Amino acid sequence: MSDPARHVVLHYAMPSRACGVRMLLEELRADYALSVMDLKAGEQLRPAFLALNPLGKVPTLQHGEVIVTEQPAIYLYLAELYGECGLSPRVGDPLRGAYLRWMVFYGSAFEPALIDKVQGRDPGRRTASPYGDHERVIEAVRAQLARGPWMLGERYTAVDVLWGSALGWTRRFGMLPALPEIDDYVTRFESRPAVQHARTLDAALMAA
Amino acid sequence: MSDPARHVVLHYAMPSRACGVRMLLEELRADYALSVMDLKAGEQLRPAFLALNPLGKVPTLQHGEVIVTEQPAIYLYLAELYGECGLSPRVGDPLRGAYLRWMVFYGSAFEPALIDKVQGRDPGRRTASPYGDHERVIEAVRAQLARGPWMLGERYTAVDVLWGSALGWTRRFGMLPALPEIDDYVTRFESRPAVQHARTLDAALMAA
Repeated sequence: MSDPARHVVLHYAMPSRACGVRMLLEELRADYALSVMDLKAGEQLRPAFLALNPLGKVPTLQHGEVIVTEQPAIYLYLAELYGECGLSPRVGDPLRGAYLRWMVFYGSAFEPALIDKVQGRDPGRRTASPYGDHERVIEAVRAQLARGPWMLGERYTAVDVLWGSALGWTRRFGMLPALPEIDDYVTRFESRPAVQHARTLDAALMAA
Repeated sequence: MSDPARHVVLHYAMPSRACGVRMLLEELRADYALSVMDLKAGEQLRPAFLALNPLGKVPTLQHGEVIVTEQPAIYLYLAELYGECGLSPRVGDPLRGAYLRWMVFYGSAFEPALIDKVQGRDPGRRTASPYGDHERVIEAVRAQLARGPWMLGERYTAVDVLWGSALGWTRRFGMLPALPEIDDYVTRFESRPAVQHARTLDAALMAA
């Protein structure tokens, strides 16, 4: 819906880590536009985009003069920009700590553990590593999801859009072991209307 | 000062990534206690601690029933728990996006880039990597600090405690190139009374 003060532009590519952010924007019924790039053609390394995100990565979010990069930061920002949707537990909410924890855990521990595993790299010395060992990271995620149905329990939050989308593509690419807690969670996530709508929009964009 | 509703326990070790969190607690004049562990003796892998943080890492924060792990999440949580101190730009503040961005950037891009560099590992394929390339990460930090005096400009926030402490130890360990913007920033940070007080307390703990 039109909401000029909260209009945002999502710098986008398919497939990429940005796809989950579009799902969040659909969950929030946000006023947004996409700026689509071709990563294979290297468009993310053009000077105009590097001025927004010097690492040349998507997702990158623009909200007026504000630039937000890094997936967990973008999820945190959007969910609180649309605070009335209830996807961001507020300061003082008993879920607030877990919400921040699992948002940050995604980028600080899960992705580094996953990339090391996929590239066959040793995690290195435990106290230097940001995550320790791969098995503990996967087990921590599995144990958290076992409490279900969502990452923080009964309440669906923006952290589920981050994890639901990420666990979906990492499972499809065979980057994670088959665990019923993870597969059931991804199935629940994929059944959400906003997620399905985002996929339909992505398919139309891909076909265009 | 005594503040039972906001009393927190910081699981701690020296030297470790937890030292910056103590500096933040001192900046906030928070009501806190330390639970000190000996990482070399492997105390972080005891079952009682793994029940709090299955990765066996410090810092780990306890606030009543709430457990927060991962440095940026802990900084975000504490700064908003003591919101009256002004170290956490509120939702709607023009600095909010940059605040979240640079908090998350630390764990999602800077640490992975640093660890890869120190271990002599190739960052891998650009679109798979969480950061792209090491030089762009360092240059992004340098360019942001060049706007100074603090990470977000004129206003000192919790993101400076994270970056001030981290850039300090990474520079001392020779993990970063000598850049005047970084060195001047660390010098400004180290001159803060709360930082100096935390160092004095750490030295006393080490001597005990």
